[in-house]
Amino acid sequence: MERLLLVLDLVGTFVFALSGATAGVRRRLDLFGVLVLSFAAANVGGITRDVLIGAVPPAALTDWRYLAVSLLAGVMTFYRHAQIDRLRSPVLMFDAMGLAVFAVSGAQKALVHGLEPVMAALLGMLTGIGGGMARDVLLAEVPTVLRADIYATAALAGAAMVVSGELLGLPSLPATLASAALCFGLRMIAIRRGWQLPTPDAGDASSPDAQDDRPRGR
Amino acid sequence: MERLLLVLDLVGTFVFALSGATAGVRRRLDLFGVLVLSFAAANVGGITRDVLIGAVPPAALTDWRYLAVSLLAGVMTFYRHAQIDRLRSPVLMFDAMGLAVFAVSGAQKALVHGLEPVMAALLGMLTGIGGGMARDVLLAEVPTVLRADIYATAALAGAAMVVSGELLGLPSLPATLASAALCFGLRMIAIRRGWQLPTPDAGDASSPDAQDDRPRGR
Amino acid sequence: MERLLLVLDLVGTFVFALSGATAGVRRRLDLFGVLVLSFAAANVGGITRDVLIGAVPPAALTDWRYLAVSLLAGVMTFYRHAQIDRLRSPVLMFDAMGLAVFAVSGAQKALVHGLEPVMAALLGMLTGIGGGMARDVLLAEVPTVLRADIYATAALAGAAMVVSGELLGLPSLPATLASAALCFGLRMIAIRRGWQLPTPDAGDASSPDAQDDRPRGR
Repeated sequence: MERLLLVLDLVGTFVFALSGATAGVRRRLDLFGVLVLSFAAANVGGITRDVLIGAVPPAALTDWRYLAVSLLAGVMTFYRHAQIDRLRSPVLMFDAMGLAVFAVSGAQKALVHGLEPVMAALLGMLTGIGGGMARDVLLAEVPTVLRADIYATAALAGAAMVVSGELLGLPSLPATLASAALCFGLRMIAIRRGWQLPTPDAGDASSPDAQDDRPRGR
Repeated sequence: MERLLLVLDLVGTFVFALSGATAGVRRRLDLFGVLVLSFAAANVGGITRDVLIGAVPPAALTDWRYLAVSLLAGVMTFYRHAQIDRLRSPVLMFDAMGLAVFAVSGAQKALVHGLEPVMAALLGMLTGIGGGMARDVLLAEVPTVLRADIYATAALAGAAMVVSGELLGLPSLPATLASAALCFGLRMIAIRRGWQLPTPDAGDASSPDAQDDRPRGR
Repeated sequence: MERLLLVLDLVGTFVFALSGATAGVRRRLDLFGVLVLSFAAANVGGITRDVLIGAVPPAALTDWRYLAVSLLAGVMTFYRHAQIDRLRSPVLMFDAMGLAVFAVSGAQKALVHGLEPVMAALLGMLTGIGGGMARDVLLAEVPTVLRADIYATAALAGAAMVVSGELLGLPSLPATLASAALCFGLRMIAIRRGWQLPTPDAGDASSPDAQDDRPRGR
């Protein structure tokens, strides 16, 4: 169990790092920039969770394997990005796997540190999506998780389920696996069917210049 | 007193969440994105303060009411943004009220945790403006608080006054209320009269392409 | 030794604050915005390090001198930016000095707080580059340290050297000075010779629209 979780965790770290590195290569960052994006995409979610629950220094800074796996993905992407681009669909699958592992293990860690169930589920979700948000903010873009797709919702579902299982006293291993499977399944189906969350209904916000009319007053 | 402060605090949370959600709707985020912006705009200031003074987990993650109020404001804005847009002027007033409460209570909390007076006042200001900055950074925009208007200055004035009152040993309740009133009043007058802070005087920085000539070298 | 380090640290704070304020003036922020950028560019690196290693409240919030030096640089830049622009080359030299001091002292502080050597070196680097990254994120730009120039690499070299010296039990003062000199020297040579890190090789990433074809799916 411990071993399985660790392997999955490192797989998640690796694919998240791939997503960060790929974004960095597309924006023509230099080697260092690509490695920073690899590390940020793979670890900022967990680091933020650890800082918020008071578990410092964060695990990503005390266990060298997270760093090593992140840098490996970054270097591979930097020198072989054409090949990795062709792997779009396996990468999306690994990414869904990483999301599932991070959301579930993040929620469990928050529970262990004494957070309330609802907050633990939200911190699990944050563990899953925080890295991608950091990647996008560093590239001066609006985080894609905020505007498209069933992504955070899948993470929240998995995190909520593992927290519920804990509250109900279900046996830990099957509850963990089922929660991760729920998140992974939701995410894969959403990709395949193009599921989206609702966006604001048409109205004055849909006019072409809607993005520019924010009040200057604040 | 306790009760009054809590009510004001939740009112502040609510209106800050409205401002985040409105910005998210204008940028056409999906429902999840709008809720994230609601929560961020309302709580990141306080969360940052709590992390910096070592009060983890932050209050916004241990008291469910902040979450509930933030999400309520987000959902209302998502489904009723046309109506909320029409409320521009009451929202600005509530926002000024939220700023006042956050600045004053943020400074008091920092003092309680042993920070020096000047730093406590600055952390009070940060509590007031941090959420709006996070909202803008997540939307890939320069925080509006950095370039326009008397906003942070009003927060700093209120925070500085409550810290001074504490140092002088003034009775707590009237000092708190007077400090909040100072911040609120400054902000409302600034809105009404269009008060602005100075911007850099004309010079080479005022040429049309001034924004693009930053050295690439760092 | 203590006194020398403090002086260098404050010099580093001052020049980093100059870089933040200059960027703010160029983007036409108001006085408050320029001061926030001064403070952020000079102190966010160290604050982030302190939060990550659990040394809260961060030194930048407990020692008033960092605040005072940052604000002084900001006010000077706001009112005298034309003159400071003319100082490009001395500012680059001071900036390299600040980078060297921050990287070396940041790594030492992380070691003292019990981090592993590799992580301590990385936190030293982060102390050196974090402020500039925060400055750029607040201006909604991709951090320049991610895409150009030998900058972070010089910081990492200095931080790694001071950590190695500690591990080898070398006498502290000369090891510290030599490490800072290594970082400073690398940075100055890189500026003079236009050294760059590699960027991704040409391929599909170099097409004109490369920046816009990121998958929406995440």
